[in-house]
Amino acid sequence: MSPREMERIVLVRHIDGAPSPDDFRIERVAIPELADGQFLARNQFVSCDPGTRSRLSPGASYAPPLQPGAPVDGFSVGEVIESRNEHFAVGDKVALTGWATHVVSNGRGYAVKLPDLGVPESLWIGILGVPGMTAWFGLKRVAQLQAGERVLVTSAAGPVGATAGQLAKLWGASEVVGIAGGPEKCQWLTQVAGFDRAIDYKAPDFEGQFAAAAEGGYDVMFDNVGNAMIDRALPVMKMRGRIVVSGQVADYNTPVDKVPGLKHTAQFIARRLRMEGLVVFDDLPGFSAAQAELATMIGDGRVRYREEIFEGLASLPAAFCGLFTGASFGRRVIRVG
Amino acid sequence: MSPREMERIVLVRHIDGAPSPDDFRIERVAIPELADGQFLARNQFVSCDPGTRSRLSPGASYAPPLQPGAPVDGFSVGEVIESRNEHFAVGDKVALTGWATHVVSNGRGYAVKLPDLGVPESLWIGILGVPGMTAWFGLKRVAQLQAGERVLVTSAAGPVGATAGQLAKLWGASEVVGIAGGPEKCQWLTQVAGFDRAIDYKAPDFEGQFAAAAEGGYDVMFDNVGNAMIDRALPVMKMRGRIVVSGQVADYNTPVDKVPGLKHTAQFIARRLRMEGLVVFDDLPGFSAAQAELATMIGDGRVRYREEIFEGLASLPAAFCGLFTGASFGRRVIRVG
Repeated sequence: MSPREMERIVLVRHIDGAPSPDDFRIERVAIPELADGQFLARNQFVSCDPGTRSRLSPGASYAPPLQPGAPVDGFSVGEVIESRNEHFAVGDKVALTGWATHVVSNGRGYAVKLPDLGVPESLWIGILGVPGMTAWFGLKRVAQLQAGERVLVTSAAGPVGATAGQLAKLWGASEVVGIAGGPEKCQWLTQVAGFDRAIDYKAPDFEGQFAAAAEGGYDVMFDNVGNAMIDRALPVMKMRGRIVVSGQVADYNTPVDKVPGLKHTAQFIARRLRMEGLVVFDDLPGFSAAQAELATMIGDGRVRYREEIFEGLASLPAAFCGLFTGASFGRRVIRVG
Repeated sequence: MSPREMERIVLVRHIDGAPSPDDFRIERVAIPELADGQFLARNQFVSCDPGTRSRLSPGASYAPPLQPGAPVDGFSVGEVIESRNEHFAVGDKVALTGWATHVVSNGRGYAVKLPDLGVPESLWIGILGVPGMTAWFGLKRVAQLQAGERVLVTSAAGPVGATAGQLAKLWGASEVVGIAGGPEKCQWLTQVAGFDRAIDYKAPDFEGQFAAAAEGGYDVMFDNVGNAMIDRALPVMKMRGRIVVSGQVADYNTPVDKVPGLKHTAQFIARRLRMEGLVVFDDLPGFSAAQAELATMIGDGRVRYREEIFEGLASLPAAFCGLFTGASFGRRVIRVG
């Protein structure tokens, strides 16, 4: 590629059901001359998030749907290599959006100059980025977790769930139970991430394990999966329990009439439950303080994380599609720089 | 009946599905001698509430289920006629619980001495009782209604819904839309209760009326009906909308696997929705201030109400069963005194 060209991933067609790598293609385009106020960054890592799925179908979600032919804009972290913007200098590390090798930005939208917290750069699209901040503000602002409470986390070996479970313990939860798929993830949860208990949803006796762990009930359910898990949890929530709707990876690919219905809703009155959805950009003003605190927790080993690093932009579509099959284990990041 | 006997309604059998009058019977029992600390009240009115239904099946709800043979304890209002309790004197007006002609109380639980607010006594089990307080605290504490917001109320001609809609207007809602069954109720909502718009769920073009009224979206949904109505409203909620789960009259008689499922739950993330269940006894400390304010609003005609008065305890079972068929129009109260 010439010095003035970049590669990016575009959506080939609106997706119906589970995404497939051929729903995406890579295109090579010229990098435009910068206008006044713009800067150019070279991405080092780009991320793939389950939440991106909700923009790949025609229906509206928390962000407008992408049209076929449009570039996909997952999160990225990179370095400014050219600038006509007084707030971003060459050499600055930045968090941006773009499934691409380069990003041209005017500094508005999601364009954040990153402080030097002494952590690997990939963490800015992982535990210090949207997944970690979702865990942080989901527990603090939405769940309003109190010391001594029992917490259930689904998709617990994923980057949001693993962080949420560990933060819950550090913030005084009496017990944290995680649900994950397969013995390897469950073992990591209890032996590395400090969960009190892990339940394997692929195990034949999952329902029995779930019922046993649910004795005593849950004050907080931090859900990253969707309706089937929430409906299972409603009858085992405690009085004034809170359900954080953080992600719905099991439902994103399903047309609304096929989504499992929440049926145990009588529990909302019986137990005064509160269920609330979360998009973490509402908490953007609080990110830098939370990131500094979380980086310290990572630095001294109180919070652990897992990454799966893929090489090259071309590996991104398949890595993204694997998010919906249970294949991922930790944060998937793609090294492009 | 001799002066030392009372009548009360007992549950004949656990109820499966819609209640029927023969699920209840009246029994005559002796009024016991009062122990120290007790008082005896003669009820003037007793109420029938849809929420009582949830205690008549074996499953746990917000209160433990009644066993066959047990007296049913809906709300009542009466007068102390004998007292060995220093806080309750003969002649005091009291709010109590008991589907009965008389109540013996030790003053604990729900036993409230009523102030003289110059309103008809039946209002203490209606708009000044649980239904009115549910509307009040559902809007204030749960929905946290703000001026300028659009509000949707279901079962709007019922005592909770009608009060909620009127309070929403008085507290600055920009528009209040009510859903009710039949032209008579809809007319009352717009012409007497001051709703901006009423939608007849029995009308052939209900879905079209609903869609037209929903343009602009709702900040608050105050639901007294259940999942089918909530699922219909989820896609027309506004960003940061709140759903108050106040009652589920359409679902109380339905086994959980047959309850309509909430499917539009992707909206919780997309629109940052919050849904919360309410049992108004959590707000008991605030009742008397709210009741005084509401009595003033009733007195000067800012808040209107409707009652259907039935005569005699024997009329109660049929009146109660009619709550689930859409037959009621306003608060049903039974005069027993």
